[in-house]
Amino acid sequence: MEEKHLRLDPWEYMLIDDYEKLMIEFGIRPVSELLGAYNLDHYYFSRGIIFGHRDFDTWLKKLYTGERVAVLTGFMPSGEPHVGTATVYEELKYFQSKGVYVKVTIADAEAYAVRKEDRAITIKRGLDFVAHAVAWGIDPEKAEFYYQTEMPSSYYRLIQMFSRKVTEAEMKAIYGDLSPSKIISALTQAVDILHLQLDEYGGYRYVLVPVGVDQDPHLRLTRDIVDRFGQELQLERPSSIYHKLIKGLDGNKMSKSRPEYAIHLSDPIDLAQKKINMALTGGRATAEEQRRLGGEPHKCSIYELYVYHLVKDERELNDIYVECTTGKILCGPCKIRAFEKLKKLLVEHQERYREALKSVEKYIKPPSF
Amino acid sequence: MEEKHLRLDPWEYMLIDDYEKLMIEFGIRPVSELLGAYNLDHYYFSRGIIFGHRDFDTWLKKLYTGERVAVLTGFMPSGEPHVGTATVYEELKYFQSKGVYVKVTIADAEAYAVRKEDRAITIKRGLDFVAHAVAWGIDPEKAEFYYQTEMPSSYYRLIQMFSRKVTEAEMKAIYGDLSPSKIISALTQAVDILHLQLDEYGGYRYVLVPVGVDQDPHLRLTRDIVDRFGQELQLERPSSIYHKLIKGLDGNKMSKSRPEYAIHLSDPIDLAQKKINMALTGGRATAEEQRRLGGEPHKCSIYELYVYHLVKDERELNDIYVECTTGKILCGPCKIRAFEKLKKLLVEHQERYREALKSVEKYIKPPSF
Repeated sequence: MEEKHLRLDPWEYMLIDDYEKLMIEFGIRPVSELLGAYNLDHYYFSRGIIFGHRDFDTWLKKLYTGERVAVLTGFMPSGEPHVGTATVYEELKYFQSKGVYVKVTIADAEAYAVRKEDRAITIKRGLDFVAHAVAWGIDPEKAEFYYQTEMPSSYYRLIQMFSRKVTEAEMKAIYGDLSPSKIISALTQAVDILHLQLDEYGGYRYVLVPVGVDQDPHLRLTRDIVDRFGQELQLERPSSIYHKLIKGLDGNKMSKSRPEYAIHLSDPIDLAQKKINMALTGGRATAEEQRRLGGEPHKCSIYELYVYHLVKDERELNDIYVECTTGKILCGPCKIRAFEKLKKLLVEHQERYREALKSVEKYIKPPSF
Repeated sequence: MEEKHLRLDPWEYMLIDDYEKLMIEFGIRPVSELLGAYNLDHYYFSRGIIFGHRDFDTWLKKLYTGERVAVLTGFMPSGEPHVGTATVYEELKYFQSKGVYVKVTIADAEAYAVRKEDRAITIKRGLDFVAHAVAWGIDPEKAEFYYQTEMPSSYYRLIQMFSRKVTEAEMKAIYGDLSPSKIISALTQAVDILHLQLDEYGGYRYVLVPVGVDQDPHLRLTRDIVDRFGQELQLERPSSIYHKLIKGLDGNKMSKSRPEYAIHLSDPIDLAQKKINMALTGGRATAEEQRRLGGEPHKCSIYELYVYHLVKDERELNDIYVECTTGKILCGPCKIRAFEKLKKLLVEHQERYREALKSVEKYIKPPSF
């Protein structure tokens, strides 16, 4: 029987359980190999949330030797920003704290072509993603946000150029089933990733792309394109880091079709509380059993929230872990604690968000249609 | 056994023998059905060079009722303009004489992506195609020429938009084997054909596309796109007319890989003479036989030159036909006569071409890279 190869689909929400296998299959390197040599002082690294990379060390060396480097990532403005989106915000904020120029794509062309989203709603959501980014702590004065459809024609021309040296077979191998809209969107993503290297767009030769690992296919295509156009256009391969995808509150993949299993950054507090209350935990069948055996935090969507967003202090996280695994705390009180932390986060975030939304068009120009 | 369907390939030079079959297979209407009702006073119509159409009558009605109409066609700037190119020039000149606004695409993006042409050469050739058009008699003050890569981003955006509603299966049915570059080029062609309808580009709702019939696949795709985006973008289906493809001087398809079998508009006169001398004719095996049976003009590449370009007067053409088919003239003297006419055409054309080339950048802006 033929072994089925893994395939990441950047256009579908995936549930990934085996990150080790993914790294071996696709040649993604473990970030752990860099932790000793570089000062990667964010808990996303130490906790293995950012687990893999391609050429991150190349980029870090450029950063530390004072060369012009940049970070670029993108958001698909479909659905509402949630705690998974915030993982990327957090990464951008971290790199900004290191003085790195940050550029953010609002993938509205892709939302239109592949996701068949309504145009007016997409444009409005794009503003929302930017306002939430600012609310999360990204300094808009030191970042640039853009809609794909608002880019000048030199950006679009690259899409056509890149098509010259990409074959259908190669794209099928990377993406699986194709459609004209997926082909154009994939090439558009490559342009998003690479355009910063052109002098016209700042000439940032060393660009790091922090993304969820489901987006790696775009990086693989982009690297292939660089290998073919490198000389002609003087392009460098992009670097990338990959974070694990935060799961839905039911332990399945997070999906925009099941919003009740995701904490959205705009959720009213009482709704967030309801979601926490019904969230899947690593609790045992009975209280007695749990006191005896302890909980299983690696199966717990609440613990995942602690790890990604709610507890930044390592000692505190460790205490929670121990309390859980030794059966000292049951899921009820643990959820109350998690909700209190989440409530604080959301209340403060939403206040900043409402402020940011007022002036969001200072930071990004929405398309007129 | 499965019957093989006809498929036109707009990216390959084709030899088409059975235009009737083509019309039936693809639903192209005969232009002859319109000759009585409309004043189509060009010998291309009466001689059946322009043989087929889609919705040409719709466009003609708009023209005659004084509505805003336009003609758009395009040239792939690979190779040099030849007598086949001149067929399109002649059509444009004719419609200009009717007061119609003419727009001409230089398909440089396509030349780069699909034909893998060198960019600098393509750009230079684009200027050449425009200078020859002006030399042929197209009034550049009443026409607009553009390189695809010089269009603003709103033009490029349409490519992405159109990709939303086009499936791979549909494009395969129209074009056969696909590649990412062909998909993007086909959608670009659709945008070339349709963009004039947008207010930003003049709001010409009724656009006629005169092309060689090998380009019909682009029209079919474009019409499908209109049917899907008509409401959203207020688009009308384009009209189109199709001319037969002039053959090479050896009776085979004209091909840029065999330039010795095509008369180029820039050919030195002595080279043109050589080509005429070795051209395939409808002559018989011996002079005696030809005097007895007459020649076969429908097999003769020289006669084709008379029909397309060298003899505009119907009586004169008829005389040539009769002389040939009754054996009154043999191929030698007939070639001398054809060459004299061609020489006059080329000498005068090339003089105007040299003039036009001096100021060609007044009429089209070449891309900077």
